[in-house]
Amino acid sequence: MKLYSGKMNRLVEELAALPGIGEKSAGRLADHLIRMPKDRVRRLTDAIIDARENVHFCRECFTLTDAETCPVCSNDTRDHTTIMVVEDTRDMQAYEKTGKYSGVYHVLQGAISPMLGIGPNDIRLKELMSRLQSGSINEVIIATNSSLEGETTAMYISKLIKPSGIKVTRIASGVPVGGDLENIDEITLLRALDGRVEL
Amino acid sequence: MKLYSGKMNRLVEELAALPGIGEKSAGRLADHLIRMPKDRVRRLTDAIIDARENVHFCRECFTLTDAETCPVCSNDTRDHTTIMVVEDTRDMQAYEKTGKYSGVYHVLQGAISPMLGIGPNDIRLKELMSRLQSGSINEVIIATNSSLEGETTAMYISKLIKPSGIKVTRIASGVPVGGDLENIDEITLLRALDGRVEL
Repeated sequence: MKLYSGKMNRLVEELAALPGIGEKSAGRLADHLIRMPKDRVRRLTDAIIDARENVHFCRECFTLTDAETCPVCSNDTRDHTTIMVVEDTRDMQAYEKTGKYSGVYHVLQGAISPMLGIGPNDIRLKELMSRLQSGSINEVIIATNSSLEGETTAMYISKLIKPSGIKVTRIASGVPVGGDLENIDEITLLRALDGRVEL
Repeated sequence: MKLYSGKMNRLVEELAALPGIGEKSAGRLADHLIRMPKDRVRRLTDAIIDARENVHFCRECFTLTDAETCPVCSNDTRDHTTIMVVEDTRDMQAYEKTGKYSGVYHVLQGAISPMLGIGPNDIRLKELMSRLQSGSINEVIIATNSSLEGETTAMYISKLIKPSGIKVTRIASGVPVGGDLENIDEITLLRALDGRVEL
């Protein structure tokens, strides 16, 4: 990367440091960026800074939002007695896209992973438990990924909630093992929802 | 993408508009960006703006640079009588990485493509011809890609230069080193056969 001069190298390095962008894609992106109209470039950088400054976790469900509570949590027509627990906002998005789930969510912002050193205290589990203490929750649907981490997290949460008497379900294994929710088609997602079993 | 609030949606949209970044990668990138330390985010956006404002074409060879002439053109120890013609800066970079080419370059910033409506006047061909008029050039090595567009461009350039008496060569086309014959397309196989050399 030595033959561009400094400013181009710096851009390529910054881009290549982002996840999923290798050295070659970074070069291609940089190339594109310096040819984009200046106002488009400014719109992109403004969007990045604006999101970084203002997007935070929903006070209720811990998804990403720039309001105090996210559109789902602040929607009174949703069923606030049913909580679907997902690993991240993209998984929540996957179920929202089906348009068929009318409850609310709880976004863990991660999954328990002993291998990566992520324990129950590193995800939004305490916050889920305190939501359940309100007494108004009828069912918790665990929709973590069906990966090792997701299953571990599901088991852990179900054991934690069971004593409280709240119904705990797990989405069915219509989701292929090892699959990541965000990559799965809507029909499979819905089938998994319909086939959920009590834990 | 409706369930994030505005600022997050806007960021995802801006990112998804970049080449090679789909809706899903844009979501993942946005997610990463809003969790990055603020100073890292600022370094990225500064790098984008700085490059967009200051990177332009080298006065000599039309590669991307932020100096008046690029490091290669301004290097007196390079052989300025041999010009390698490439389609873009990344191709130039590929040859620079070998460390074995000591001549200079001419970056066309594209290739002739009737299908995309890109003609000889849309790439830096006039600029190449005026470099040749200096009379000090011994050889032009055409290293455009071996795609339809690259080959068309190579043919066009060679016909354009031939009358001037300057030596015009084309990089060899054939089976890549380490390539497995069974995975290589027929055209390449035939070209490798045509271009066979005596051992």
